[in-house]
Amino acid sequence: MKKTIAVLQGDGVGKEVTKSAVKVLESIGKRFDHSFRIQSALIGGEAIDQTGEPLPKETLAVCEKSDAILLGAVGGPKWDHNPSALRPEKGLLAIRKHFGLFANLRPVKAVPEMMDASPLKEHLVKEVDMMIVRELTGGLYFGEPKRKTANGAVDTLTYSRKEIERIVEKAFELARLRKGKVTSVDKANVLESSKLWREVVEEKKSYYPDIEVEHILVDAAAMKLITQPSSFDVIVTENLFGDILSDEASVITGSLGMLPSSSIREDGFGLYEPVHGSAPDIAGLNIANPSAAILSAAMMLKYSFGLEKEAAAVEEAVYSVYKDGYCTTDIQKTGHRVLSTTAFTDKVIEE
Amino acid sequence: MKKTIAVLQGDGVGKEVTKSAVKVLESIGKRFDHSFRIQSALIGGEAIDQTGEPLPKETLAVCEKSDAILLGAVGGPKWDHNPSALRPEKGLLAIRKHFGLFANLRPVKAVPEMMDASPLKEHLVKEVDMMIVRELTGGLYFGEPKRKTANGAVDTLTYSRKEIERIVEKAFELARLRKGKVTSVDKANVLESSKLWREVVEEKKSYYPDIEVEHILVDAAAMKLITQPSSFDVIVTENLFGDILSDEASVITGSLGMLPSSSIREDGFGLYEPVHGSAPDIAGLNIANPSAAILSAAMMLKYSFGLEKEAAAVEEAVYSVYKDGYCTTDIQKTGHRVLSTTAFTDKVIEE
Ligand SMILES: CC(C)[C@H](C(=O)O)[C@@H](O)C(=O)O
Ligand SMILES: CC(C)[C@H](C(=O)O)[C@@H](O)C(=O)O
Repeated sequence: MKKTIAVLQGDGVGKEVTKSAVKVLESIGKRFDHSFRIQSALIGGEAIDQTGEPLPKETLAVCEKSDAILLGAVGGPKWDHNPSALRPEKGLLAIRKHFGLFANLRPVKAVPEMMDASPLKEHLVKEVDMMIVRELTGGLYFGEPKRKTANGAVDTLTYSRKEIERIVEKAFELARLRKGKVTSVDKANVLESSKLWREVVEEKKSYYPDIEVEHILVDAAAMKLITQPSSFDVIVTENLFGDILSDEASVITGSLGMLPSSSIREDGFGLYEPVHGSAPDIAGLNIANPSAAILSAAMMLKYSFGLEKEAAAVEEAVYSVYKDGYCTTDIQKTGHRVLSTTAFTDKVIEE
Repeated sequence: MKKTIAVLQGDGVGKEVTKSAVKVLESIGKRFDHSFRIQSALIGGEAIDQTGEPLPKETLAVCEKSDAILLGAVGGPKWDHNPSALRPEKGLLAIRKHFGLFANLRPVKAVPEMMDASPLKEHLVKEVDMMIVRELTGGLYFGEPKRKTANGAVDTLTYSRKEIERIVEKAFELARLRKGKVTSVDKANVLESSKLWREVVEEKKSYYPDIEVEHILVDAAAMKLITQPSSFDVIVTENLFGDILSDEASVITGSLGMLPSSSIREDGFGLYEPVHGSAPDIAGLNIANPSAAILSAAMMLKYSFGLEKEAAAVEEAVYSVYKDGYCTTDIQKTGHRVLSTTAFTDKVIEE
């Protein structure tokens, strides 16, 4: 298989961890006889510094000619006081919208070696294995009117039935490949958009009689992610609720440094990125945990290229390195040997 | 002091726990020589059953002639499939809006005797002592247009500068009486209303040079409530973020059955209610934990009547009962004696 991958390193540790992911992709390419052509381009703070824009046209052109996008992370204190249009994260929002990447998939899985790092008691998290499916191009993020005056401000939460249908279908399809349960999160006791959301879920349900469906209010979901996190399989929700709940979920297992994400559309084209940020405090030190970026590359193999076996090989390799007693500075587990970003990556490739 | 209190028991355990709170108020009245006149009225599911409306006019009339409102809880499976206007929680939303109760205060404090019940590791929660200040009458809850058609839906998030100012001021005032720190939560990288929110906080800050101020994004706040909950003092945020974050915060210390809340306006008039719901599964069994309702009555004494000494007496009494080794079924701590709702209440009164 021949594929072109746009690599947008972005800022901070984004640079280091995407290098690790690319190395792993190259090694998978060799072993399984695929050719991955890597095309680099700018995004985020570095793009602002070099071109004056968080998402330059050249970057869009590179992505358009690629089969998938691998992203590091964007942002840092240097750009924190920029006017809104010149903020690194605008690049991220713009790329999602430009390519219509409506489905953000965020798996959260407990890793036995990381239980110590979890803020929750072990018995609550050890069975956690969920996938948050967040709608990514609608809702309050892009609805109009959206404006601020001296005396007030307005944002608009809009969803078309179609937008809800496609993300809900995605969730049902994913649940079929997993534990067969969909939890739909809304605020139907207050929001009209949530009522429509709930209606659509009820409609789609009849096409998936094998899937168990539950509806839960967003406030109750925020509680249950802490009190019964292992009760979830697939969680599907709108853009902003998904933003909040997926970040909440990302810390419960103590494995934030390992969490990948993918943002895809119907045809399989997608953007893959670690859940963690640019971590400016440790950038350039070669100590960042590359697992999340490597596992994001694995998601790319699976969801954009349909290479299930190759994806599984990458995942197993990463988990084996932990099982063998290695880790990076973010974990610091007694008895484990702390490796640098590059040394950890080499271990993954070895496996 | 002579005060009239509207008591709206509501549904489920709301009936039992408000009885406990009223008993405690009567005993405080006797001891400190105040007269509390109790006026009961209907709300929620029971009001729907008896009058056809979740918030009957007679209830509003009783509340209008009172100095404060004590509420139990509303809702239950019986009304879960009612059309939206006939749902018990509409009564709650309507009463908040009718009286302009814009500030929802929700303290969350770790109780040593309850540490076992916390889903988080003890070292993370044992110092937790925060107050969430949620804006309660604006934002997505009431903004127009708000409508659903066959093909789409819209909700509107609006805030006027004035609405933001008054809640932010409230947060600063509360921080002065506490640890002197305000964490303002928004989504300023995406929402215009959040940009205005952040602007207002920055402006008000100069009037409170003694208060430390931090801004944090709602997604990051959802993480930090789990990873560093004791870093917070006063958290101030808009209506829906406050709904999600305060429920999330309510479970971290394992003491949900003890958490009170108050919803107040500038002149001190307010509505006081436990954070927990109507718990239909244990309703009528005389086993519900009355602590949250009793502590809500204590908040009433303090915030609506200015009776600080009396409020402190109630709080100390509740904490003492736990220290003395008693609890209710929701806790079940080894070595503790489980009491019924009424027996627990009598212990509190004794103390
Ligand atoms: C940077 C920000 C705009 C973004 C979002 O809110 O979507 C981020 O929090 C995320 O979840 O990817
Ligand atoms: C019942 C519901 C409308 C309400 C809200 O969202 O405000 C509840 O969750 C609360 O927090 O008091």
